[in-house]
Order: sequence, then structure tokens, then C-alpha cells
Amino acid sequence: MPKPQQADAEAGLPALPVPLIDKAVRAALEEDLGLAGDITTTATIAEDARSSAVIAARKEGVIAGLEVARAAFAACDPAIAFEPLVKDGDVVAPGTAAARIEGPSRGILTGERTALNFMCHMSGIATLTREYVQKAAGTRARICCTRKTNPGLRAFEKYAVRAGGGSSHRYGLFDAVLIKDNHIVAAGGIAAAIGRARAHAGHLVKIEIEVDSIDQLREVMAIGADVVLLDNMAPKMLAEAVSIIAGRALAETSGGVNLDTVEAIAKSGVDLISVGALTHSAPVLDLGLDFVG
Amino acid sequence: MPKPQQADAEAGLPALPVPLIDKAVRAALEEDLGLAGDITTTATIAEDARSSAVIAARKEGVIAGLEVARAAFAACDPAIAFEPLVKDGDVVAPGTAAARIEGPSRGILTGERTALNFMCHMSGIATLTREYVQKAAGTRARICCTRKTNPGLRAFEKYAVRAGGGSSHRYGLFDAVLIKDNHIVAAGGIAAAIGRARAHAGHLVKIEIEVDSIDQLREVMAIGADVVLLDNMAPKMLAEAVSIIAGRALAETSGGVNLDTVEAIAKSGVDLISVGALTHSAPVLDLGLDFVG
Amino acid sequence: MPKPQQADAEAGLPALPVPLIDKAVRAALEEDLGLAGDITTTATIAEDARSSAVIAARKEGVIAGLEVARAAFAACDPAIAFEPLVKDGDVVAPGTAAARIEGPSRGILTGERTALNFMCHMSGIATLTREYVQKAAGTRARICCTRKTNPGLRAFEKYAVRAGGGSSHRYGLFDAVLIKDNHIVAAGGIAAAIGRARAHAGHLVKIEIEVDSIDQLREVMAIGADVVLLDNMAPKMLAEAVSIIAGRALAETSGGVNLDTVEAIAKSGVDLISVGALTHSAPVLDLGLDFVG
Amino acid sequence: MPKPQQADAEAGLPALPVPLIDKAVRAALEEDLGLAGDITTTATIAEDARSSAVIAARKEGVIAGLEVARAAFAACDPAIAFEPLVKDGDVVAPGTAAARIEGPSRGILTGERTALNFMCHMSGIATLTREYVQKAAGTRARICCTRKTNPGLRAFEKYAVRAGGGSSHRYGLFDAVLIKDNHIVAAGGIAAAIGRARAHAGHLVKIEIEVDSIDQLREVMAIGADVVLLDNMAPKMLAEAVSIIAGRALAETSGGVNLDTVEAIAKSGVDLISVGALTHSAPVLDLGLDFVG
Amino acid sequence: MPKPQQADAEAGLPALPVPLIDKAVRAALEEDLGLAGDITTTATIAEDARSSAVIAARKEGVIAGLEVARAAFAACDPAIAFEPLVKDGDVVAPGTAAARIEGPSRGILTGERTALNFMCHMSGIATLTREYVQKAAGTRARICCTRKTNPGLRAFEKYAVRAGGGSSHRYGLFDAVLIKDNHIVAAGGIAAAIGRARAHAGHLVKIEIEVDSIDQLREVMAIGADVVLLDNMAPKMLAEAVSIIAGRALAETSGGVNLDTVEAIAKSGVDLISVGALTHSAPVLDLGLDFVG
Amino acid sequence: MPKPQQADAEAGLPALPVPLIDKAVRAALEEDLGLAGDITTTATIAEDARSSAVIAARKEGVIAGLEVARAAFAACDPAIAFEPLVKDGDVVAPGTAAARIEGPSRGILTGERTALNFMCHMSGIATLTREYVQKAAGTRARICCTRKTNPGLRAFEKYAVRAGGGSSHRYGLFDAVLIKDNHIVAAGGIAAAIGRARAHAGHLVKIEIEVDSIDQLREVMAIGADVVLLDNMAPKMLAEAVSIIAGRALAETSGGVNLDTVEAIAKSGVDLISVGALTHSAPVLDLGLDFVG
Repeated sequence: MPKPQQADAEAGLPALPVPLIDKAVRAALEEDLGLAGDITTTATIAEDARSSAVIAARKEGVIAGLEVARAAFAACDPAIAFEPLVKDGDVVAPGTAAARIEGPSRGILTGERTALNFMCHMSGIATLTREYVQKAAGTRARICCTRKTNPGLRAFEKYAVRAGGGSSHRYGLFDAVLIKDNHIVAAGGIAAAIGRARAHAGHLVKIEIEVDSIDQLREVMAIGADVVLLDNMAPKMLAEAVSIIAGRALAETSGGVNLDTVEAIAKSGVDLISVGALTHSAPVLDLGLDFVG
Repeated sequence: MPKPQQADAEAGLPALPVPLIDKAVRAALEEDLGLAGDITTTATIAEDARSSAVIAARKEGVIAGLEVARAAFAACDPAIAFEPLVKDGDVVAPGTAAARIEGPSRGILTGERTALNFMCHMSGIATLTREYVQKAAGTRARICCTRKTNPGLRAFEKYAVRAGGGSSHRYGLFDAVLIKDNHIVAAGGIAAAIGRARAHAGHLVKIEIEVDSIDQLREVMAIGADVVLLDNMAPKMLAEAVSIIAGRALAETSGGVNLDTVEAIAKSGVDLISVGALTHSAPVLDLGLDFVG
Repeated sequence: MPKPQQADAEAGLPALPVPLIDKAVRAALEEDLGLAGDITTTATIAEDARSSAVIAARKEGVIAGLEVARAAFAACDPAIAFEPLVKDGDVVAPGTAAARIEGPSRGILTGERTALNFMCHMSGIATLTREYVQKAAGTRARICCTRKTNPGLRAFEKYAVRAGGGSSHRYGLFDAVLIKDNHIVAAGGIAAAIGRARAHAGHLVKIEIEVDSIDQLREVMAIGADVVLLDNMAPKMLAEAVSIIAGRALAETSGGVNLDTVEAIAKSGVDLISVGALTHSAPVLDLGLDFVG
Repeated sequence: MPKPQQADAEAGLPALPVPLIDKAVRAALEEDLGLAGDITTTATIAEDARSSAVIAARKEGVIAGLEVARAAFAACDPAIAFEPLVKDGDVVAPGTAAARIEGPSRGILTGERTALNFMCHMSGIATLTREYVQKAAGTRARICCTRKTNPGLRAFEKYAVRAGGGSSHRYGLFDAVLIKDNHIVAAGGIAAAIGRARAHAGHLVKIEIEVDSIDQLREVMAIGADVVLLDNMAPKMLAEAVSIIAGRALAETSGGVNLDTVEAIAKSGVDLISVGALTHSAPVLDLGLDFVG
Repeated sequence: MPKPQQADAEAGLPALPVPLIDKAVRAALEEDLGLAGDITTTATIAEDARSSAVIAARKEGVIAGLEVARAAFAACDPAIAFEPLVKDGDVVAPGTAAARIEGPSRGILTGERTALNFMCHMSGIATLTREYVQKAAGTRARICCTRKTNPGLRAFEKYAVRAGGGSSHRYGLFDAVLIKDNHIVAAGGIAAAIGRARAHAGHLVKIEIEVDSIDQLREVMAIGADVVLLDNMAPKMLAEAVSIIAGRALAETSGGVNLDTVEAIAKSGVDLISVGALTHSAPVLDLGLDFVG
Repeated sequence: MPKPQQADAEAGLPALPVPLIDKAVRAALEEDLGLAGDITTTATIAEDARSSAVIAARKEGVIAGLEVARAAFAACDPAIAFEPLVKDGDVVAPGTAAARIEGPSRGILTGERTALNFMCHMSGIATLTREYVQKAAGTRARICCTRKTNPGLRAFEKYAVRAGGGSSHRYGLFDAVLIKDNHIVAAGGIAAAIGRARAHAGHLVKIEIEVDSIDQLREVMAIGADVVLLDNMAPKMLAEAVSIIAGRALAETSGGVNLDTVEAIAKSGVDLISVGALTHSAPVLDLGLDFVG
């Protein structure tokens, strides 16, 4: 069985849906502007002032969110020109300018925080993802994210994981079956749970099931599943599980994964390592907006 | 001049606006349910199954977001009863149950991730805030957050900072003037900037100005401002600045603040220490939903 | 290879997401009520009048949409009681009452058309689906719908297909890869297209590719895909295709499918027959609201 | 009394409100794109690829919805040029190109289904309407639609009826009074119902009342109404009713109308024939998007 | 020709659509609560405090908006009980309590301003309308409002006019034809304009045309229209116009109408007097919320 | 203590947030267009007709809302050019053209009422504000508005007050503390209320408290507050209060303020006079749209 989905270097990242970007940027600006708007900028900056600025990295990291930043400035003033100088997914050194912004000073100042809030968060996720991906380099394991995302930002966060070289997992409760322990108990056992899931899911929906032990795994493999989630197992047990699965399903693991443990876990032979922290606990990448001459 | 706003032990936290909770919870559920809904749960769990569960802390931390979790379950099924066992702002030990949930199993399983995504993120912010607050204990310095928030979640994140003992800063561009270096340059100097801001801002709006040096500070104090933001100064320079301000304005500092530096900074005598990391880089507090007999 | 997902008689239909129902019902009522509201009812019906009514089938068919109808009446007046007398997916004879409604007459009259517009449309789709499913009975073929849905109603229409015994296909552009002729040309051939798709899609996403000829099919099978869409092929060619695929992928067909041709197509051995007409051209099932003594 | 509203050949169709088009197109795209977007197209089509395509009719029919299609493509990528080659309301032969689309290939492929879902549905309604209109040609009867529309799509469906040569009825509960049997009973008789309606309705609101029998009709005509809805009457009884009304009100009929019966009904002399099937049961007009050299 | 629509004393006011009330109340509360909520009340009022209050009139006037006020309090806290003590449309003396509110003090204080903003505005409109209606008493003239409403509040304002005894005009551009001078010029004259309008409008849509002079009126009457708007004519000319119209159309006048002129205008014999000021310039009715023992 | 915020003649008005303008204009157009659109204009005006028009003042007043009007026309047809001829805040004589509009006639006619509804209302508020401001000229008193605004329009109304030379007060419950009598009672007295407010409010939030008597004022001044609201006091008592406050807080008054009393009140020495009537009871400024050659 071949190694699953590896990022094709030639192909770009899948674009974020335009209506999602527009809606999220608008909501963020409404949050920041309230009813009174940017009272500092309108008081201190002349209406016809124009500026040039760059968004620059303060630390090394992976850039993500350039189109969202563009939309944020455009929503403040369509006269602002936004020119990306790198691409989402690019690794930048400290001091690198990721984008150049030119136009009315008021709009640039008003949109600055909204643009940066998206980009710093998304780039932070991409950067952390890359650290995990690098630790797993040379193994068949792919790093993927989970549904543990910040409410309202899932599309942006999963996109950022992709920008960092990670892979997407299911986007929600709707696009894949993931049978957990409570489902197994409620359905009356592994066989019943998988059977009922298979009976209900469309033909394009994959079925994954979580197991805690080798015994459970054997029971699952006797029935069949697309993916097995090996929950909270040490590398040695993972290796045993992988040999039992023997390519008949994808082997995913989660639990106890951090930057110290991920390499050993990846070497166990699993196909997928899912890491909630990528989306729920990544610190931002420090980016700033600098006005230039 | 008295120490600024200290949390009154008797008074509860300011409640999150109900319409905001409803809207955010609904958006999060739509994101998770898509068009097809929770295909695992509807396949494996009987419609009339009922369960009891608790939301339990896996680590020590500060709880925040109980009302949001309640709303998430109610939006899935109004028949779910949600009983908080602690209050937002309470410190809980690992294993503590923060809330009890009872009702239809399907709704509990469907709402679980949305409820936890809010609570883990908000409790993570509250927990990190508390760490900073404890380091600053015994000084006059209050810990406050910034506008560096996750887009769409500002109200929830600022509430969480309050739950952790921190203080709110301005909520957006609309409710206070904060004059930064670009504004000063564009307005033609500190005096002009403050003058124009004062001319435009309503009588309830406070004016804050950022300074990088003692010289700038002296220039500001000659004119007057409600708050001075001492940007990126070492504790010693902060102490000098505080003595120059001499209670005529609030002294805030930001930049270079982390858990290692905050105590020394707090001892400089500043009134406020603002920390972007509280909202943009706090890891989640690990909470889980456990079904109980 | 086992026959794909067959509906489990014991398991209920997957529920429509509650937030989707609320939003769609509200939008439909706003459309019908405008700014002035139900001017006939408020003029002619006393505010305290109460009525009992049933939603009755005028023709034989499959019922779908009961929860949506309930929500429509509740949105007009929460005091209206709605009791389903059958379940979604049930086949009813002409004259059968599908639900009983009791409460304030004004609300019942105001909500009547919105409730019926959903139920008649959804039941019409379910009824047409059942006709196709019955024609394919005894074969391995499942009937499924497409993305050819009425804008804004996809979740409701796909649910109705399920209620009629059909199966869901992908819900949108987001949850499965379907490579069509234009994608193949643009990507530079079948191998390149599948390769790029596999590189980008998450591990839970299945990949389907459309082929027009046996030659194309052989090329696809040499590379591998989860599903092959055999476009517009006659039953004889479909049988040949099925024998080439030999269980290594699911065989789907579309094009030229109608109630006259579906049986022969189903007997070709394909796994899936997708029919756009289920959602885009199904006539309503005639249901009416009758006031009862 | 002159024949009522006949379409003026010189005058165009009333335009759909721009905000409605934008909102519906955006909702349809969100439904189709989900959080992950068009994963097939972003994987297989280069970002800078450009294409030309036409929307072509596969069957004869009446085109409707060109502006909605334009908006769908523009929402995917504003760089897409959309040139209508016919006008809404035009009858096209099989193979006719209704519009030409040029621009970025990704946006064209992503917007294709949304654009076609609107146009095929709207053109299907227009085409069916035209069939009814042609059967009634040479009589004074106009064909009009009802409130039996697909939820959320009423404006689009009523527009399509107009494009097919039909006429609009009331748009909702808000813009005309239509007194049905339940209203008559509740109000205490025909006289009371009309009286109360007249007392409440604004001076621009017309009053229509449904009657089942010649006796009821005589009672109505003694009081007066703007329109009488002759419910489910055979052509002979309709003719009698028309002679009783004698031009003092408009005579509308509904019930039992189909393509076989409509001509005889139209010859009875009624002014209006309302047909729910125009909007709730019209099959789509088959249109496809073909890429051109 | 009988006098047009007179309010039936027995019949209630047409209810405002529930979804409109919910949406407007929610928007108003979001506007007032922002991200931080009611910071005064949460700081000073205990969470479990309960209060009783009344909404009392400070001046004589007509009450309107009770259901909107109820919804405002319910949106703050569903535990608040709201009991109307009068009905919309009732005239109250100064000091009269219009509603009693009981429940959690925080919710009452938070919702107070939103509830009053709706009620004071709506009651102000109802009160001003009543003044006009009383001046026109004893004539056949009805007082009606226009499309000159505050954006977003049209349904509420037109409802308030009805509560004050006035009558509704068209609700928007969509529900009646009103041909003004610019339309006449563009269409090529009165005959062409009416002809084109009649050709396009549905059979339930009335056609009104504005005339400036007796000559124009004669031209209109030779063709026919449902309503003639006599623009800015003195009472004497209005009387002449009414005699020319002779009951063949409704006679409406607008322009130059105020509380000093309305009586003379009404005595001219016109059917309708439309007054933009009812909605765009009515001062509020002074209502206050008083806490009671 | 210096006189508080005086409008700086050189500085422009703070701009209304763009997303707010877009959302409000769109909502207003949806309200006016319904499902059927502008049926008069589409029937009578050729699609390719073009016009020039001006928005002209019928009376002297202060213009406000030009950007909103621009957005209204642009939302109807982006091909409409809108050129302001004056600035918001300018006083215009009767007959003055405030803006020139050129483009497709249909769009101009369709957008006319929405554009004027905003501008007439906003300009009416600005004009009334200016009257108050002029009466207070030569005193230190500034005229400001309250939260007594029309629901959904607060941002627009407060902007208009600014355009008329007035000052903004708090924008909602969220951006300043205003302790009223009920809060004082519930908190257990003035000292407790201020203490609790200070403990909860962020450092940028000012605290205002309402007093009814000189005794209460003395109690407040012993504790300290940023602003004291002197409720319903005659000028003489106000002067006494001002002397007690002695510059240690801002002195605001409200209640009993009208165009006859405002001058005497202003001369009492108060800093701020808040007038609810500015926003809730200002009549419109009469503006019209005139087509030009």
C-alpha cells in the first residue's frame, strides 16, 4: 500500500473559498470598528495621506493568510494595493517582507490589526505544523490536524496546517465517520457500530474507528475499516498495531503527541499522526506592519 | 493616586452578551455540522438514548466559558440539562468536574466538540492570564490584554482574560484613542496628535499615547494624556518613567513581556502591563467530556 | 467486494442539522410575510381562535420533512403543537394524515404554506427516489443524487433522497474529488490528474474520476481510483466496464438515466446510479392541510 | 372591461433586485464550497489557466436567469467576463449558446454548477410556463403562478414565470388579501370576511375571495371583491361564473389545471388561471457549460 | 363609491411578523451591548436580584410596540415576565402604566433602553398619526403614511401608523405602481406610462399616478388608473379634482400637509391624505421605566 | 481645567465604518425592493436610459450622510457616479445642490428613496444639533446625544450629531459606566456603586454617576468620579453644582433641555448638555432629488 497523500511540490495550496474570506474579514472589522470606527486614525491622519508599508516577519516561520490580509485592507479601502512578496507556505527568515501595501494611510492603519490578527495566527499554525512535519521527515507519517479548532476559524486554521505541510483530517462531523468509544458502546459493539455506519454513510464517505487496545484492533480488522485511530499508544504498541493492520487500512494515531515524542511515533510506521495542538495551541508567528519611506 | 481597577472579590464577572453567545455558538455548530450533520452519531446512537456526562479538567487551570458551553448543548437539543459545578474564574484541580450534562445522547455527542472548543480556548486564556497576574502580585500592576485576538472571538477572549484576573483594555478602535508612532508622525508631532485626538474624542473617551523614550515622555507629560504606553522599555527605564509621570497619568507598558520578565516589570511601578500573548498565544486548558454511569 | 452501503432498516435517517432547519424556515417565513405580515389572517381570524388540523396526503408517496414543518409552525407561534403521525421515509396512502397540528388558528394559517412548501417538495423528491430504487431492486445498484440541487436547499433535498431510500453522493465541491474531462485535460492527462488529486486530498477524501470510454477506464484502473464514473454508457458497455473494474473500485454511472432505462442500467452490475432529476426535476407530492372538527 | 395585463413586447422583464441576487448566489456558493473549497479544481487546474466556455441549451426552451449566472461567476472570480448572447425570455433551439464566459479556468469550473443550478431551474419554469401560455393563446386568460414555491427561491421563480410569458400573483401573505374557506368560516361568513378585510387592508391592496359554488359566487358579487377565485370548477361552470361576474371583478380559477385541461379552461372566459405546478413541479431545462477552443 | 378602508373597531391591528421583531430586537441589542455588554449593571447589580417595574406614559399618547418591548426583555433574559396592561392603539393618559415587567433586575436594566427606544418611537408615530386622523374626522379622508421611513424600521413605523388610526400605503417599490413625473417623461407621456405599467403589473397590483394639474388629471381619467395622486394642490383645486374623478378612482393628495392644513384638505373630498412626516419627523412619545415596590 | 473636546475646524469628521454603511444600505434596499423589485421603474424606464440629477436642499440646514447616499446608489448600480458638492457638516442654503448623480436612470430612481431616507434623517439631526450648539455658543457647554436612538441606526445618528457640531456620549452600555438611581439603590449606596464600578471597569473606561440633589453631589465628590450627571436641575442649582464640582469632574446635565432653555442651562457653567431629542425627535431636513437637463 502506497504512502498516503504527500504534498505535490508543484501544485499550489487549495484556495480558501472567497465567500468565507469576505465574511470572516467583515466580521473581524465590525468587531474592531464598532459603531464609532477608528477614532484615533480619523482624528490624527489627513484624509488624503498616502503610505507604503510592508508586512515583515520578526521571526523565522511559515507564512499563511496573504489573501485574507489582502481582503482585510480592501474592505477598509478598495484603493489599497496589496502585493504579496512571498507565497503562503513559504518559509521566511526574520526581517523578510511578506507583502507590500500602498494606498490611503487611513485605510492601512485601520485594517492593520485585522490583517495581522489573521496572518499571525495562521502563520503561527503553519510554523508549528512545519516543526512537526520536519520531525516526521523520512517516515511515512503525515501530520494532520483535528476538529479542535477555534470556533468560526476552522477553514482558516486547516488551510494554515496545509500551508505548513500538514494534511487535513475531516472538516466536521459531516464528511467522514469517526466512531469513538461512546459510539461503540451505544451501538452495541464494534461490529454493530461499523455495520450501522456503513449502512448510513454515502459511498464517498470513509469510516474510521478508534481503538484503545490490540484486542479491539483485531476485532476491527476482522470487519474492515478505512482508517483505524490508535488512541494513546506508545511507539512500540503502535508498531505492533501497524503490523497487524498490514496495509489493509490507514493507521492513524493521536494522544501524547508533542515535539519531543513525534519522531519516535512517526517511526512506528503509522500513516497519520493527528495533533490537536496545531490548531488549538499554536502561538502566533510574530509579524509586524512597518511603514516604509 | 489610587491603584487602578482591582477585581472585587464579591462581584461576579461581567456577563457575555447573550446575543453574542447565541450567534457564535450557532456559527460554530454550522461549521461542524455542514449540510449532512453528525453522520457518525445518527448512524450509531439510538434516537431515544440518554446519557449523563461531565466536563472535567485534565490539568489545573482556570475555568471560563460555562455559559457558552451551555448554549452549545442547548442549540443541539433544548432537552439537554447543563449544570455548572464551578463558576467562571474558579481554579480547578486536575480531575475536577466543571459541569454536569444530562439528556439525549445524540445531542450531547454532537455538541461536545463545539462546547469544548470554546471552553478549552477560553479556559486556556484564563489560566495563562492567572499566571501573569500571580507574578505581578504585590505590585500595583494590572495585567491586561490587547486587540491581538482571534478574529471573531474578541468578546470571548477578553472575557476569559477577566476570568483569569486580568483587566480589559480597549475593545476595539472605537472605544479609546491610542496614538502610536505613525499617528504622531502623520499628525505632525505629539502635541498636534494629542490636540487633534482631544478635539475629536467624546468626553468619555480616554486618550493614550505611545512613547519610546524619556524625551517623548516628557513632551507628553507637558501636554497631558490619560494613559502613557511605555513601549519596550527595560524595568529600570520604566521606573524612571513612572517617577516622571508621578501619578498624573496611568503608566502602561508593553513589549518584551513574558512569564520570566513580568515580575521585574511589575515592580517598576507601572499601573498596567499589556500582554498580547494572553489572547493570541495561550495554549488550551485540557478539558474533556466524560460519560458517567 | 461487498455491495456498498445499504440502508439499515433499524437505523433512522440522519437528522437534518437543527441550525439549518431554523435558518431555512426563518428565511422562508420572511419571504412570505414581508413587512406587513399575513394581512388576510389578521383581518379575518380572531386572535384567540384555536384550531386542529392535519397534514394529509392527496396521493401515495413517501413523506419527508416533518421536522421542518414542525419548525415552521413553531416559528409562527410556539404555542402550536405538532404531532407527527408517521415518520420521514414512510410510504403513505392517499388520505393518510402525516401530522396533527393544534393551537392558535392564526399561527396555523400563517405557517401553512411554508410548512407545506418544504414538505411537498421534500416528499416529492423522496417519492421519485423510491420509484428509482424500486426499479433497481434486486441489483447491487444504489440510487444516488448529485449536486444538481435547488440553490439553498441542498441539505433538505439530499435528506429527502435518503428518505426515499436513495444514497447521498458528495455534498459539495469540498468533500470528495470528482475529476471530470476538463480537469483531465487541464492537468495533462489521467495519471497527472489523479496524482495531483491524491497529493492534495486529505486521507479521508475519496477520489472519483469520470471516463467516457473503455480505453480511458483501462488507463484509470492502471493507476487506481476509489470510484469511476462511467459517463453516458449503454448497459452493455457498463457491464464490460464493471468486469474490467472487477471490484477494485466502485462503479458509478450517470447520464441517460430515467424510469424507463434505470432497470437495465442497474442490471449491468454498477454499484451506483446517480440521477440529477431526483433533486432538480421531481414534482411535488400533493399534501394539504385540512382543518378538523 | 378590458383584458388584464398583457406583456408589452417592447418592455423588458422587471429586473430581479440586485441585493437578492447577491445574497442567493453567495448562499449557494457557500453551500457548494463548504470550508475546504473546490478541492478538485485547485488540485488539477493551474492557477493561471484561462478558458472560454459557453452555456448551451441541450433542448428547446425559454432562457431565464442570465444575471444570476453572471453573479455566480463574478462571486468566484471578478476577472471572469460573462457575455449574454440571448435575453431572459428568449426561446432557444437545442445547441444555442445562451452566454459566453471567459477568464480564469478555476473560477469558471468552481462557479459552473451554481450558475447552472439557477439557470436550469429558472429556465425550466419559464419553459413550462410558456407551454401553458401557448395553450391559452387566443383567449383572455393569463397564466399565473402561486405561493407554492421552493423556500428561499420565490423571487427567482416568479421572475422565471414572467420570463415564460406568465403573470405574477401575490408575492406573499403581505401584498394582497386572499380569503379562503377557513377564513370565511372563522370570520362568520362571506360578508363579514370581506368587510373585515376591507377595513384592514390599505387602499392599494386588492381583495380576492375563493368560492366553491355558484351560490357562494352570487353572495360575493352582491358585496363586491376585486378578484374571485373559482376553485376547482369545470369549464362549463366557469363559463357560468364568468357570466355572473360580468366584468365586475376579475375571474381567476385554480385546481385541476394541467397541460391537457388548460385550453378548455381558458376558453371558459376566465381572466386568470393559476398553476402551482409552474413553480413547484417544473423539470429543469437542460443547459450545459461547454469549454470552447 | 363607498368610503375606502375604515378601521374596524372590533378587529385588532395586524400583527408584526415575528421573525422581523426578533431580528430587529437582536440587532438593537447588539448595537447597545457591543462586545463588553452592560458593564454598569454587571458591576453594580447582584446576579440574583429581582425587580418589578412598569413602563409608564409621561404624556398622553397612543401606545404602540408592546410586543417589540416584550421581545427585547425576553432576549436579555427569558425569565423576565412582561404583561401588557393596555393594547397597541390605546390612548393613555399621563401616568398610565402600559406594561408591567418582573424578573431578574440585570435583564430588566439591560433591556430597558432597547425596549423604550422601540416603544417611544412607535408610540410617537401613533400619537402624531392620531392627531392628523382627528383633524380629518367627519370627512371621507383617510390619513396614510409613505415610504419616507427610517431605514430598517419601515415595518415598525407603518405598524405604528396603523395603531394611530392611519392607513398603510405601499410598503415598498414592489407592491404597487406609483408613476411620478420622471416616469411619465421617460415613458413618453401619461398614456404610455400607464399602458406600460398595466402591461407589467400583476393583476393584484394597483396603479397610481401623480398629477400636478387639472389638465394632467383629465388626461389620466381618460385612460383610467386605480388611484390618482394630486400633488401639492390647494383645497379648492383638490375639490375640483375630486369632482372630475367622480369616484372612478381614489383621490390621494400629498404635499403641504400639516396639522394646520389637514382639516381643510380633508374637507375637499379626497379619499387619502399621505403624510411623510408621520414616519420621518414624529417626535417620540415620552415613556419611562419605573421600578415599583 | 480646560474646556473639554471642541471640534477642530481643520479635522474632518470621523468616518462611518464602511461595513456598517454597506450593511445598512443593503438592508434598506431589501426593505424597499422586496421580492419583485421596483415595478414602476422597470415598467416605464428603458434599460439604457441615462440621467443626471442633484440632491438639493429645500430648506437651510446641515448636510450629513453623503457617503451613505453614495453607497445606496452604488448598490443599485455600480455605474452610477456620485459627486458630493458639499461636505458632511456644511450648512447649506435652500436650493443648494449637495451632490450630483449621473448614470443609468433606473438605478437612480430605484435608489432615490433609500439615499434620501438616510440623508434627510441624518441631516435633520445635524440641523437640530446645530441649533442647540448655536444657543450654547460662548459658553463652555458642549451639546451631546444619548442612547435614545432609533434601533439599528445609532452609528448613523451619532455621526450626524457630530456633523452638526455636537459631541458623542457613550455609544452603548459597553463603553462607559453610567450609574443611575436604580444602580445606586441596588448596589447599596453611592460609595458602593462607584467602588464596584471602578473595580470592574477597565482602565480606559470612564465612570459617570447621576445625582438628583446637591447632597448626592457632595457625596459623589467625596469619592470621585469622572463625570457627574446633574439630572433635571434648574440653571441656578446647576451653577451651584458646578461650583461644588470645581473642575474635579466633568459636569453634565440632562432633562428639561429644549431650544428655549438650553442657553440658560449652558450659562450655568456645565461642561456637557445631553439632549435625547437630537436623535429621537429631530424632524428631517427636507432634501429632494431633482433631475437636471
